[in-house]
Amino acid sequence: MTEPPIGPLVVLEKKWPNNLAPVAVDIGGSFTKIVYWRPPYAPTLPEYVVRDFKDSFFSASAPLKPDPSLAVDISEGSLRFLKFPSSRNVEFIDFIRDTKLHHAWGENKMKTICATGGGAYKYKELAEERLGTVFTQKDEMKCLVKGLNFCLNHVDREAFHYNFEEDKEEFLSVDQIKSTETNSPFPYLLVNIGSGISILKVEGENKFERVSGSSLGGGTFWGLAKALTDIKNFDEVRELSQSGDNRNVDLLVGDIYGGDYSTLGLKAELIASSFGKIAVKREDAPPSDYNKADVIKSLLFMISNNIGQIAYLNAQTCGVEKIIFTGGFLQDNSYVWSRLSYAVQFWSVGKMKATFVQHNSYLGSLGALFSGQNDKGTKEKTK
Amino acid sequence: MTEPPIGPLVVLEKKWPNNLAPVAVDIGGSFTKIVYWRPPYAPTLPEYVVRDFKDSFFSASAPLKPDPSLAVDISEGSLRFLKFPSSRNVEFIDFIRDTKLHHAWGENKMKTICATGGGAYKYKELAEERLGTVFTQKDEMKCLVKGLNFCLNHVDREAFHYNFEEDKEEFLSVDQIKSTETNSPFPYLLVNIGSGISILKVEGENKFERVSGSSLGGGTFWGLAKALTDIKNFDEVRELSQSGDNRNVDLLVGDIYGGDYSTLGLKAELIASSFGKIAVKREDAPPSDYNKADVIKSLLFMISNNIGQIAYLNAQTCGVEKIIFTGGFLQDNSYVWSRLSYAVQFWSVGKMKATFVQHNSYLGSLGALFSGQNDKGTKEKTK
Repeated sequence: MTEPPIGPLVVLEKKWPNNLAPVAVDIGGSFTKIVYWRPPYAPTLPEYVVRDFKDSFFSASAPLKPDPSLAVDISEGSLRFLKFPSSRNVEFIDFIRDTKLHHAWGENKMKTICATGGGAYKYKELAEERLGTVFTQKDEMKCLVKGLNFCLNHVDREAFHYNFEEDKEEFLSVDQIKSTETNSPFPYLLVNIGSGISILKVEGENKFERVSGSSLGGGTFWGLAKALTDIKNFDEVRELSQSGDNRNVDLLVGDIYGGDYSTLGLKAELIASSFGKIAVKREDAPPSDYNKADVIKSLLFMISNNIGQIAYLNAQTCGVEKIIFTGGFLQDNSYVWSRLSYAVQFWSVGKMKATFVQHNSYLGSLGALFSGQNDKGTKEKTK
Repeated sequence: MTEPPIGPLVVLEKKWPNNLAPVAVDIGGSFTKIVYWRPPYAPTLPEYVVRDFKDSFFSASAPLKPDPSLAVDISEGSLRFLKFPSSRNVEFIDFIRDTKLHHAWGENKMKTICATGGGAYKYKELAEERLGTVFTQKDEMKCLVKGLNFCLNHVDREAFHYNFEEDKEEFLSVDQIKSTETNSPFPYLLVNIGSGISILKVEGENKFERVSGSSLGGGTFWGLAKALTDIKNFDEVRELSQSGDNRNVDLLVGDIYGGDYSTLGLKAELIASSFGKIAVKREDAPPSDYNKADVIKSLLFMISNNIGQIAYLNAQTCGVEKIIFTGGFLQDNSYVWSRLSYAVQFWSVGKMKATFVQHNSYLGSLGALFSGQNDKGTKEKTK
């Protein structure tokens, strides 16, 4: 994708629909994700605001940056994406108040904005009090589906497969993501991996059903990783996974049978039991027998294989062939894309492929942006 | 079940079929499981043998005991069951050699016996050398299915459901385990939980197919339990699970949404993310914030719920309604029966029930016993 230049976070109203606020927010447990409309020829903010804003948020540390590469051109301007840790929400709200940034689109435009995620409830009172802007709360799953459908239908190269043999994305055009039968992206299975996992069967623009879920998600990976080792972030995971050898902690088919279990078609190198070698280790064996790189690799394989299996099985029971994975655990995370792609291919015996999307983190905000203030979305079919 | 008196481990041939050895063995990574035929009116062993045998194996520690309550009466006598740790295999082989116990059925009877499990390969040479008895290796899965089918068809109150609300077994008669359509126990899904998990669709006496599996099994529970805490056995698990509170380490739906997520029908107390609270804990939080009882309970819930879900989903894709759980992780383990029963009810929304069996640990040995020396079982359909 070509990367549009980074624009300052300010716009003036042009043709943005009157019933939609130009900004929406998805406040999660870890990150606050903002989507905003930037009209063409938008005047820039006064220099001191841009400078202050940058000083406060963009330059501080790695996660405090906008995602300019994700900007989407729409007829009336473009959509921009910004993310920062939820721990800085109060600071951000005060920055908006002090710079009057929320009046940049015209005062009436920001009387109410759509908010989703757990923080839409948690920060409602504070935001409304300090900014004079009403938070209209939107259902998280409805926003997720709406945002994803917008991207699938309108953003070229939004969806991609991950070629785990060559370690690269293989982008799909808007047409390629469509089923030949329906000339639409539907039906598909949406597997949203946050702390936990929600699995939705999506059959139309606003038609979906939560069919399953799992408590073994990103939170389980991080919870166990933190309890078992001292690692702090995904850069370390990536690094350790290169040097680690899961075979030091996992029990393989070959460890049990001395080779392939060929009657059942199980290869010797297949993981028979995650962490199984620790289980059968003698009680007096020193803990140093397994190191953190091995443990992290085993954990990543365990979680990814399990998600891939549950996703595949649900796709089978729902009668859909397309599985789209989204959620915070996947953002900029080619290592997890690779493992999930392998898992889906393994469980489906090559019949299905994992699909990922570029705007992964921003689907909820996008859905909230397009929800409008009166759309409570009561038409959606939910279980 | 009525408990027959404990009989000494010795028999003389009466009407046992000529093509079957009166003893079979399943040598697993943790336990060696022996099944032997005891004819009616069997003379007892000389007192010194019984005493020595008891001293060596039965009186030493808890796992070194026969399972007299599992004895099964058959027309020509009864089947008896004995289990001891695989770590004592060499000692046991020497005991048999020294007491000539393997000649008690008549010398020709024990020229060859059927053996299954990984140890059938590992101990073959040693056993053959010291006892002069050929180990005929039998396929583990074929033996498992054969043994289970024998029990389901011939042993009353073999199968049971576990009532997790009242913490008690609800036994089924041979007739009750049969499907009304087929007047047989078939079809059923067999979920064998050892270190890892194998899932078989069983459609007939010797007709089965491995449809799936999982690396998150008993070995994963024990491996993670040992890496995270200092516990050593299941008695501790049971005890800790009574005092532990998984809500200290698991992230619940209510933690995220402040209550039920009612649009999706998710109750506040549902686990959204196993170990998710450790994941979101501040980096400088002391490790003492979570204790081992909480961790063990969370781990047990995580593994059981996941197995229950994968079992249910596979039952759905295979079009079968009966799920039978077997394997070492379940032996004498009402706490796991309870959690698995809950999980299957939860995922199937009350439409399916988990079924367990009494001879759980001995199915492989039983299958080997009835395999005969020439039955290589090549007719079975395997994937």
